[in-house]
Amino acid sequence: MEKARQCLELNQEESDSVARLAIHSYRVGATEFSFYEDFALRGIRVDRVEPGLVSCTFKVPPRLTDRNGNLANGAIANLVDEVGGAVVYVEGLPMKVSVDMSISFVSTAKVNDELEITGRVLGQRGGYSGTIVLMRNKATGEVIAEGRHSLFGRQPSKM
Amino acid sequence: MEKARQCLELNQEESDSVARLAIHSYRVGATEFSFYEDFALRGIRVDRVEPGLVSCTFKVPPRLTDRNGNLANGAIANLVDEVGGAVVYVEGLPMKVSVDMSISFVSTAKVNDELEITGRVLGQRGGYSGTIVLMRNKATGEVIAEGRHSLFGRQPSKM
Amino acid sequence: MEKARQCLELNQEESDSVARLAIHSYRVGATEFSFYEDFALRGIRVDRVEPGLVSCTFKVPPRLTDRNGNLANGAIANLVDEVGGAVVYVEGLPMKVSVDMSISFVSTAKVNDELEITGRVLGQRGGYSGTIVLMRNKATGEVIAEGRHSLFGRQPSKM
Amino acid sequence: MEKARQCLELNQEESDSVARLAIHSYRVGATEFSFYEDFALRGIRVDRVEPGLVSCTFKVPPRLTDRNGNLANGAIANLVDEVGGAVVYVEGLPMKVSVDMSISFVSTAKVNDELEITGRVLGQRGGYSGTIVLMRNKATGEVIAEGRHSLFGRQPSKM
Repeated sequence: MEKARQCLELNQEESDSVARLAIHSYRVGATEFSFYEDFALRGIRVDRVEPGLVSCTFKVPPRLTDRNGNLANGAIANLVDEVGGAVVYVEGLPMKVSVDMSISFVSTAKVNDELEITGRVLGQRGGYSGTIVLMRNKATGEVIAEGRHSLFGRQPSKM
Repeated sequence: MEKARQCLELNQEESDSVARLAIHSYRVGATEFSFYEDFALRGIRVDRVEPGLVSCTFKVPPRLTDRNGNLANGAIANLVDEVGGAVVYVEGLPMKVSVDMSISFVSTAKVNDELEITGRVLGQRGGYSGTIVLMRNKATGEVIAEGRHSLFGRQPSKM
Repeated sequence: MEKARQCLELNQEESDSVARLAIHSYRVGATEFSFYEDFALRGIRVDRVEPGLVSCTFKVPPRLTDRNGNLANGAIANLVDEVGGAVVYVEGLPMKVSVDMSISFVSTAKVNDELEITGRVLGQRGGYSGTIVLMRNKATGEVIAEGRHSLFGRQPSKM
Repeated sequence: MEKARQCLELNQEESDSVARLAIHSYRVGATEFSFYEDFALRGIRVDRVEPGLVSCTFKVPPRLTDRNGNLANGAIANLVDEVGGAVVYVEGLPMKVSVDMSISFVSTAKVNDELEITGRVLGQRGGYSGTIVLMRNKATGEVIAEGRHSLFGRQPSKM
């Protein structure tokens, strides 16, 4: 049990660094984004928008790196989720809820690496849309991750 | 282009709330966890460890909720990544790198919902391991998300 | 180009073995199953049905093995698709179309291995359902594959 | 239990149509392909091979259609598996075993629809490779399915 603790639970000092964050609970209408989204997306730049496509630049910030100094998988997943959602939003499709996401982590990105993140609409079937998000190192062209992400619209989007 | 900007880029005030975080770049050997992992895992409790299984409790904190007040998809992905990694670590398998992750987001979790997160080893083939992570609402038993996550060991783990 | 040909295209003799199959095009109302489904499912036995669960036995037939003598990945995918669809059908959910499928191939099955294939409903959100299908070697308990498979109901099911 | 039976088990007539197939068990060295692969791939044509890319044409045959007259999901999965494997084989990477596959079924293909199936290498990490396979309707350009498929090489490939 100690091994699992050591792998998942923080010590006091680690825990304190997060405890110092003052984050208020979600209040309806208070902000457009949540703190989590600010945390995950700050610094992203939308470069190009075409039908079915959104392309962004993002420089890996220290706050999103894991213990090996690489852009964390959870942060990659979040970018896939948000950029896939944005391309659907731009398309004006009545989509809202992510239901399935799959990601291949093909290589890694380090702090200050500049990434190109491109989201495309794959297709739709009724209220269901499929998108793909490709994340590359802008300097080398190397693929960091490819994600696919399906959204499903239960009710008209209010985004 | 405005729609995509509005969907992805933060305004000044939002951006400032994150800019105030003082996060240092990764330094080798400095800490066991990164700030990102502190941020994502703080509050998780390891309840049970058996061969091939790790079970945890996690209360949804405000810092991980999205604009709808739900546990963010990126945060779910991060928990799948970490709990799947922990079960492999406990097993002592020589695994290190997440290569594929797929998640079904079956329902949502709100702030203060208590979650049970269980990771299991599915099997292994050579240096490759498959794990599944199930996230349930502890009170109702409802499945929030099911993730599958494959790890691949290129070299002996230093975790 | 020769390597890709050799890997994908059949020679005359191989091609002939399939050409001898007399398969008629789909005709509405002609049969409940298509030849493909007969081919993929023949021999499956439904053992247990409970709310949200269908459990079957299937003995690996020679017709579904790949060039290494293992149950082919495509055949595994088809079983995941059909058993996941069956559990949704049994539940009476208005589901019809598979939209996302992800499979981890954890180990292999040989001709005559007896498999236990269990499908479960993970949850649903509006017209969307998630299922998981677990395929084990019945004798050893070893997991062969785990699949997740999402279905989406555009219109009332006529299955 | 009757509903699940009706959904998965064949009746006598259906069962007979498959029973008439004379398929011999796998014998080492007997053929390059198995009957299953003949069945799944017959008619595929390799059109283009470039570094990291294989592009094929495939006309949907009656034998691979489901009860709705569409190219069956299992058949799509098999094509993703084989074309992804071929691109890795052409690249000469020491890959052999499919470990993860995920597919989005974006639209459907009918008998005689001509498909363009393109496999690309996404990247590799040690003995691990990621590929993507895109299947489009050749006449309309519409995406039928997008698959991602990871292969892992335990030992030198003998393909």
